[in-house]
Amino acid sequence: MDSTTQTSSNTQTTIALDAMGGDVGPDVVIPGADRFLKDHPDLNFLIFGDEARIKPALDKTKLLRNKCTIIHTDKMIENDDKPSAALRKSKGSSMRMAIESVLNGDAQAIVSAGNTGALMAMAKIILKSMVGIHRPALASLLPAPNGDTIMMDMGANVLVDAENLVQFAVLGSIFAKAHKNVDKPTVGLLNVGTEDTKGPDHIKGASTILSNIDFPGQYKGFVEGTDLLNGVVDVIITDGYAGNIALKTMEGTAKTISRQLKKAITSDPLALIGTALSFFALRRFKKKVDPRLYNGGVFLGLNGLCIKSHGGTDDLGFASAIHLAYQLAKAGYIDQVSTEIQNLLSQDTLVDEA
Amino acid sequence: MDSTTQTSSNTQTTIALDAMGGDVGPDVVIPGADRFLKDHPDLNFLIFGDEARIKPALDKTKLLRNKCTIIHTDKMIENDDKPSAALRKSKGSSMRMAIESVLNGDAQAIVSAGNTGALMAMAKIILKSMVGIHRPALASLLPAPNGDTIMMDMGANVLVDAENLVQFAVLGSIFAKAHKNVDKPTVGLLNVGTEDTKGPDHIKGASTILSNIDFPGQYKGFVEGTDLLNGVVDVIITDGYAGNIALKTMEGTAKTISRQLKKAITSDPLALIGTALSFFALRRFKKKVDPRLYNGGVFLGLNGLCIKSHGGTDDLGFASAIHLAYQLAKAGYIDQVSTEIQNLLSQDTLVDEA
Repeated sequence: MDSTTQTSSNTQTTIALDAMGGDVGPDVVIPGADRFLKDHPDLNFLIFGDEARIKPALDKTKLLRNKCTIIHTDKMIENDDKPSAALRKSKGSSMRMAIESVLNGDAQAIVSAGNTGALMAMAKIILKSMVGIHRPALASLLPAPNGDTIMMDMGANVLVDAENLVQFAVLGSIFAKAHKNVDKPTVGLLNVGTEDTKGPDHIKGASTILSNIDFPGQYKGFVEGTDLLNGVVDVIITDGYAGNIALKTMEGTAKTISRQLKKAITSDPLALIGTALSFFALRRFKKKVDPRLYNGGVFLGLNGLCIKSHGGTDDLGFASAIHLAYQLAKAGYIDQVSTEIQNLLSQDTLVDEA
Repeated sequence: MDSTTQTSSNTQTTIALDAMGGDVGPDVVIPGADRFLKDHPDLNFLIFGDEARIKPALDKTKLLRNKCTIIHTDKMIENDDKPSAALRKSKGSSMRMAIESVLNGDAQAIVSAGNTGALMAMAKIILKSMVGIHRPALASLLPAPNGDTIMMDMGANVLVDAENLVQFAVLGSIFAKAHKNVDKPTVGLLNVGTEDTKGPDHIKGASTILSNIDFPGQYKGFVEGTDLLNGVVDVIITDGYAGNIALKTMEGTAKTISRQLKKAITSDPLALIGTALSFFALRRFKKKVDPRLYNGGVFLGLNGLCIKSHGGTDDLGFASAIHLAYQLAKAGYIDQVSTEIQNLLSQDTLVDEA
């Protein structure tokens, strides 16, 4: 992960944590927050959840115990609740209370490793879409040779139109500015080929609009599936259908190759010795593709920052998700998007279908 | 690649080759055909192209020189011709003449490593869609732990409806029967999740139809991007938009990981020695994921078999593409599809939108 952070303010930042989310809960969330605090002392946390489970984890921390407030609740959203069911019984749950603290201005961002569908539904209902934004969307980081690539939508919206994609390009570009500290991030649209005539209508339509408007990124045309990890652009825009399939295809391919490689290099005694000698090199390799460093889906386009951590991650992974929340809060992401969306809506080239 | 072949006839099979296709032309096509002949003596080839370039390559072969007929032409389709331009000037070209030999019944299949767009356009115009098939589609093989997986459409049709997908399921299942020698291949629909409510309408619609009809496969529900290489089903059905993006994402991910691994294991002297000791194990690993063994896109749904080889492959890769042509021809693929499509059209559950 790129560790540069564009700071637009020097005031204290507060991040709300749903301590009960994820496969493990407080025993990952608390050490994750403590780990992140080491290099970011200008940070406070509001921690929502069961105090009896939070306290023991907190007692083991060095820094966090003095930089947080616990807001106790014994209600929580289960990982296997359906979003609709979760919503109905959400009142007073750690997830909902954490989101509400962003709405109330008590925190600048919320991070949860809980139920993805429930988190997205709840954040949308409580924080609501920003004025002018038609569909909030989910952004992820991908590793690339020259710093991370931001890709969105990763699955929040299966069906989108050209204008939704253009708005994603605005949301993603401002995210890239904060995360990569670049002035005009390059933007590509994921398609089945690079020729103008290729692809579905919503992709071609978005390409036409992006070629003709002024927005916070530089539009570079179509990119393909082979470009997702090569850093050819800073931001890759797609619909939630292709985005979700591409993301899971990357995961599956990486897992398959790792498994086969492991099998091969432990398959005979000579190879085993060889593997032992390559231990440090292989560890470096593993570190380079460590998914914990790319943990965190950012739900963009709402009146508040909401970050989803992977449910099965550890404290290092959870700290990566907090990092994204911190970067976007410090960069004044919400205000920047608000300004840019108004700028976009005022441009003639854009047909507003709202 | 699975090497079992379902043989429905013991008669001689003839395959037409576009000798001029691909980055190299006859010097890959001719040794590729010769290589395949070794284990398949019941095969003849019609070789279309420039005799002056074919002859020297043919003189070096042991078997092929006695099992082929050269049909000379000095016209050929260039790799960078646009499909429309290629079509206009196609008369008398090696690609077109090879396709026409299938139409005339002189060959049972055509294999070309030439311009993909031109080949698909030409095959569609000359061989035409089978009665009842609305959209021919491109199928590929993916490696899986328990034999290959067949995936389609890989990009011939960006926009499809539910019924198109159901037809792809029929085309793919009969391909799987021939290629994997299984009676009722399992079939999954690529989607963004496995719950019934998820995904775009054409995918959900196809799922409803496939759950209610009798067709040559067994429908197993939705699969995700993480399932493409794990062999959870024999056949994966998708539209050409998601299929093309998923295929290229797999390619890009595999390339990125290989490059990083190579860099890691040659990065220090100790690792280099380790890598040397693991030489045979790494070679086995490389062989397992050798893309040449999965070469060959099969254009299904036409009144004739048309197989596209990768333009940059070598003779081993070209032999893999010939293998697919041979399997499908021997299995009587065209007749099987014709029967099954009629069976499908007669079922009440299917809304025929033709």
